[in-house]
Amino acid sequence: MSNGGGGGGASSSTHLLDLLEEPIPGVGTYDDFHTIDWVREKCKDRERHRKINSKKKESAWEFTKSLYDAWSGWLVVTLTGLPIFFLAETALSLSLSHAAADWLNDLKEGVCLSAMWFNHEQCCWDSNETTFAERDKCPQWKTWAELILGQGPGSYIMNYFMFTFWALSFAFLAVSLVKVFAPYACGSGIPEIKTILSGFIIRGYLGKWTLMIKTITLVLAVASGLSLGKEGPLVHVACCCGNIFSYLFPKYSKNEAKKREVLSAASAAGVSVAFGAPIGGVLFSLEEVSYYFPLKTLWRSFFAALVAAFVLRSINPFGNSRLVLFYVEYHTPWYLFELFPFILLGVFGGLWGAFFIRANIAWCRRRKSTRFGKYPVLEVITVAAITAIVAFPNPYTRQNTSELIKELFTDCGPLESSQLCQYRSQMNGSQAYPAGSDAAATPGVYSAMWQLSLALIFKIIMTIFTFGLKVPSGLFIPSMAIGAIAGRIVGIAVEQLAYYHHDWFLFREWCEVGADCITPGLYAMVGAAACLGGVTRMTVSLVVIVFELTGGLEYIVPLMAAVMTSKWVGDAFGREGIYEAHIRLNGYPFLDAKEEFTHTTLAREVMRPRRNDLPLAVLTQDDMTLAELQNIISQTSCNGFPVIVSKESQRLVGFALRRDITIAIENARRKQEGIMLNSRVYFTQHAPTLPADSPRPLKLRSILDMSPFTVTDHTPMEIVVDIFRKLGLRQCLVTHNGRLLGIITKKDILRHMAQMANQDPESIMFN
Amino acid sequence: MSNGGGGGGASSSTHLLDLLEEPIPGVGTYDDFHTIDWVREKCKDRERHRKINSKKKESAWEFTKSLYDAWSGWLVVTLTGLPIFFLAETALSLSLSHAAADWLNDLKEGVCLSAMWFNHEQCCWDSNETTFAERDKCPQWKTWAELILGQGPGSYIMNYFMFTFWALSFAFLAVSLVKVFAPYACGSGIPEIKTILSGFIIRGYLGKWTLMIKTITLVLAVASGLSLGKEGPLVHVACCCGNIFSYLFPKYSKNEAKKREVLSAASAAGVSVAFGAPIGGVLFSLEEVSYYFPLKTLWRSFFAALVAAFVLRSINPFGNSRLVLFYVEYHTPWYLFELFPFILLGVFGGLWGAFFIRANIAWCRRRKSTRFGKYPVLEVITVAAITAIVAFPNPYTRQNTSELIKELFTDCGPLESSQLCQYRSQMNGSQAYPAGSDAAATPGVYSAMWQLSLALIFKIIMTIFTFGLKVPSGLFIPSMAIGAIAGRIVGIAVEQLAYYHHDWFLFREWCEVGADCITPGLYAMVGAAACLGGVTRMTVSLVVIVFELTGGLEYIVPLMAAVMTSKWVGDAFGREGIYEAHIRLNGYPFLDAKEEFTHTTLAREVMRPRRNDLPLAVLTQDDMTLAELQNIISQTSCNGFPVIVSKESQRLVGFALRRDITIAIENARRKQEGIMLNSRVYFTQHAPTLPADSPRPLKLRSILDMSPFTVTDHTPMEIVVDIFRKLGLRQCLVTHNGRLLGIITKKDILRHMAQMANQDPESIMFN
Repeated sequence: MSNGGGGGGASSSTHLLDLLEEPIPGVGTYDDFHTIDWVREKCKDRERHRKINSKKKESAWEFTKSLYDAWSGWLVVTLTGLPIFFLAETALSLSLSHAAADWLNDLKEGVCLSAMWFNHEQCCWDSNETTFAERDKCPQWKTWAELILGQGPGSYIMNYFMFTFWALSFAFLAVSLVKVFAPYACGSGIPEIKTILSGFIIRGYLGKWTLMIKTITLVLAVASGLSLGKEGPLVHVACCCGNIFSYLFPKYSKNEAKKREVLSAASAAGVSVAFGAPIGGVLFSLEEVSYYFPLKTLWRSFFAALVAAFVLRSINPFGNSRLVLFYVEYHTPWYLFELFPFILLGVFGGLWGAFFIRANIAWCRRRKSTRFGKYPVLEVITVAAITAIVAFPNPYTRQNTSELIKELFTDCGPLESSQLCQYRSQMNGSQAYPAGSDAAATPGVYSAMWQLSLALIFKIIMTIFTFGLKVPSGLFIPSMAIGAIAGRIVGIAVEQLAYYHHDWFLFREWCEVGADCITPGLYAMVGAAACLGGVTRMTVSLVVIVFELTGGLEYIVPLMAAVMTSKWVGDAFGREGIYEAHIRLNGYPFLDAKEEFTHTTLAREVMRPRRNDLPLAVLTQDDMTLAELQNIISQTSCNGFPVIVSKESQRLVGFALRRDITIAIENARRKQEGIMLNSRVYFTQHAPTLPADSPRPLKLRSILDMSPFTVTDHTPMEIVVDIFRKLGLRQCLVTHNGRLLGIITKKDILRHMAQMANQDPESIMFN
Repeated sequence: MSNGGGGGGASSSTHLLDLLEEPIPGVGTYDDFHTIDWVREKCKDRERHRKINSKKKESAWEFTKSLYDAWSGWLVVTLTGLPIFFLAETALSLSLSHAAADWLNDLKEGVCLSAMWFNHEQCCWDSNETTFAERDKCPQWKTWAELILGQGPGSYIMNYFMFTFWALSFAFLAVSLVKVFAPYACGSGIPEIKTILSGFIIRGYLGKWTLMIKTITLVLAVASGLSLGKEGPLVHVACCCGNIFSYLFPKYSKNEAKKREVLSAASAAGVSVAFGAPIGGVLFSLEEVSYYFPLKTLWRSFFAALVAAFVLRSINPFGNSRLVLFYVEYHTPWYLFELFPFILLGVFGGLWGAFFIRANIAWCRRRKSTRFGKYPVLEVITVAAITAIVAFPNPYTRQNTSELIKELFTDCGPLESSQLCQYRSQMNGSQAYPAGSDAAATPGVYSAMWQLSLALIFKIIMTIFTFGLKVPSGLFIPSMAIGAIAGRIVGIAVEQLAYYHHDWFLFREWCEVGADCITPGLYAMVGAAACLGGVTRMTVSLVVIVFELTGGLEYIVPLMAAVMTSKWVGDAFGREGIYEAHIRLNGYPFLDAKEEFTHTTLAREVMRPRRNDLPLAVLTQDDMTLAELQNIISQTSCNGFPVIVSKESQRLVGFALRRDITIAIENARRKQEGIMLNSRVYFTQHAPTLPADSPRPLKLRSILDMSPFTVTDHTPMEIVVDIFRKLGLRQCLVTHNGRLLGIITKKDILRHMAQMANQDPESIMFN
């Protein structure tokens, strides 16, 4: 307490940065591919907020500005909610995706003679035979074979050829656009968004080019028939909108921490729009995407999702005044015994998830490490060709995947003409099903089951090779399709079992003869949730998304049971979800909040300098010259330097960032006269006493962080990891009995964690 | 770095506590009404976990133990989910609450002659006239007047008298039981649970006595007709179950941080059971109750809610194979224009919330500070008497509140006989409503509206005086009732407006002549959500609870709009919800994560010692005698002491807790010989060199926390507050250039915050 007044005697408004001096432009910004310092960003924001608040009473203009500032948070999420919708859903999903993608998709099969821009359904609107089975009976709609060959032989081959041709054209266009204009537009984008939200800078990843190219190529990629979905990329598109709109508000554009609040809300709005599931979107942002999710962000996300859902509701895209995509209505409740097949589906989902993650990561690693990754266009075209060629003969794979899921989810009613619903009662012309009597399957159902099984194998294999291609590719729809197919197969099996063995003790109680006691569509729904859960390891958000998607509030217990089982089974094989696995594959500095650090290492074992390293590069507070400082900066590569009282005492004063020092020196050279190489550099409040002939000293206190985080060398690493995670630190200094010993950065921690897990620590690439 | 080896040369397995030595019993526990140290608790748990894991391979028994340990988390939430249900819902809500409470409630009006233990509905099962209007026409059911006076005059007075008499008896019994057996059983319990979850010890608050008495008195309190609900107290009951079951697992019983994970899950299960809303329960725990909610706790809560929902589903209490309490089915969608009245309802909800919080807190403060609080029994009886006397004449207040809400939510169909549904089409005997034509209200509806308005005023006033009485009292149902009444009134008004002015431009588009375009029940639902939101300031969880409660997935946008408006309006008058207001009233040390700290103070302005205080009581690492140590302990009242290298250097070594020092000294005196008053006390690894004749020294290193949290004196308080919140600290040391300056405790921070908000800092009472 005696010597406490040395550098600390400033006025009480002196903060992290010395505010009395003019701020140096550029100080406090970040380089590309660097980690941000959450604490500093938050302090900057509160400082800005206080400045505006203190001026508030000066004039009406300042008051308006403060009001605008206070409401800009809500405004930016409103804006994000609106255009995400208008851009992504109106322009893309509706006019483009729901029309263009449908049109492009149908273009693979044929063309509408009456109006070229009509898709199959619009074209055949009058003929009332738009169901899958009767697809080719509409007079205006001509398949390519009919158009080119007439009704002659070889029409199947011709259709096959044109289907493949169009699929390849779309795929080629998509991958070329991505390659030429916006390389960041490929993939689902969720791993990168997770990394960005955890506090990392990837410039251009959420820019306008990415937005535009991703929107266009997404439609092309979906239309090309590749095994991918558009829901994941829509989250990326939403985050691009959020990022672009945040530039309208200096509060958000100039503060990386605040910007991430907007991005969290934007990803909620993205899911809200992609699935029509506002609450599910908020929970998705909370559970899967966001790193920090304070209650304020929860409310903002809720609001963004509300705006998106509201616009969705006003436009009414699905024509049933409901928000939901796959609205289903089942007529029978579920029975306790059915939990057993549901849990089996959960096990299948978990196994599929674990298998998919391993296989996909192995393939992506191969792509990264071998020569083969150098030809992305060729790869996409190859995969698209194989997909198209294999998919065409099977109606369940030729079909749009969303439509397939919808068909699988739907309960068999009297009006359902799908092959899956050819039960004996229906074939007899009796319209009494499902209240009616004969739930025995006809050969039609069995052949549908065979086709579904083949479709299942096809989807499983193709999805592994598709996710990670250089086109926008989501994983939600393919995963759900795989689960829905498996679920429907299990559902029909259980149904037939109950039909033929209705006197078993299991069925006797509740399944009367002829009664319709099993709903195969429900099994498809549960299977879809389980498979998606196995891949992404989401729980609560997934259940909410699925039940918002289908309106099946009563089936929450089966869904929860399957999803929970799927997560447990998946976690038994590896705790990472697909997004975390891709983050690790790319070497991003992501400190996962889900993984627990369980080792017994101490801070001093992780800190640099290690035992045989050079001593830590430090600055002293008032006895260095500019030349010495520049020498230290040029000789080391670290991002920041601790400042100490003197070499002898090693007592810590603060921390200065390399980037800030460089900018400050350049700025001083430009603006202040008399700064020379032998100028004294000081970080204290008052200049040190210098000889009379010495040049003008350079004060760098304004860039000194006077409240660096410190831990003692005895601190267990589990605490250090916890501090880094919860506070979002970039670095932390290590002391022993008040003396500086070393430094721990986020990269050190990640490398240490990789080492403890017997992985290559060099895989962590960025700071 | 030179002097780094002094006390730090221990082996790498030396941690926070020196594990090589035998642990001293009692060290690491807490006093009643003290704050826990989250970081230390978590370290303790990981240490325990590592110990079990390292032994795992030794024998099959150890392996089983490690498996049991790994699964005990899921096991305890399963157990919590089950008995919460069996106790709270089966025993209480079903056999007790849904039967006993109904029976008790009906006992106020009359008795069943054929079977005394039948309530009104069970008694009149055969007569098919169980609706409210025809209530007195069942032959077996006798009102008190009929029983005592026969059909003579004065029967109304007699019924009135008996109604009041029973209400008073129940209220008296409830308050007496609470007063005698378990004083902690009163109130809703949510403010205290929030405080406990934020890391505070209140012994007995979640004990078995509280559980038993709260369960019994809750039924009595509800039956007494007081304006209270049973949903909030059920969360408390659930937490009691969670706490009691956690004692079966040493992992949870011995670790305060882990126990709180179970309590978070328990509160989710509580809401899941109270409302039949599993997802809403998880979100309620996240948004309102819990302090730390890592993803692991999210999954556990989800699982507990799943178990609870599953049991609820198997028992099927509401007889409709649905989980939901107030299942509604509306026949018309909502229209864009209706958002305007919905937002108006949101404004009403926000105003009501703000008004209620202020009025209730003022009243509770009066109760605490004046003599009047000394007579809780008298107060409860007075309030119960007034409630009964005023409630009896109005059918809407005499009725059970849950039934009232259900009636208000329900859409008018042809079979509805409620007075609220006496539209002209129904009176004409035409059963075509709602498809039918005449939605004009009859005088019956208008008189119902009058009665509802009176009920609204009555409920508003009585709820203010009821919440805070010394009986178990929840706030959910009364708030929802107030909102539902207001909403229904607005709904009927809009409906009649649309009926009589269907050619207005607002209605013209979508409201054809005679069509049924407004659903007053939906307005009641939105109003209920808005009022509950205004009082508790919940958003996402509330919307999810309401739509799980009613099954109204399609009405998510109106609900979201109303709840968001309600929150904004409420926040404009004061940011605290009712639970936070009660926490502050009671002076609990709760560092609210929602409130932002926006002041510019620095750590050194908050730390003790202040400018004119005595110097900080510190211990030196190796030159104090036992007598000096005991002297310091007895002369000061602080809970812990920093340990420094020497008085001259003031360099910090670690931190020792008062409780631990006392226990360690007692333990040493009992077990080690030769410990005398002039024994040297040392905290270093090796004993200091002592004169030959000195007594045996006392080593206290095992109780020394060698990684205390430190901040510099220049750290802005906003960062310090953030650290305390996110890491759950109890205290933090303040240094300047490596020297110890002072200490900041959680209490210091809370007092400082109170001071900055111009409140009395002495209102923070606990450590």
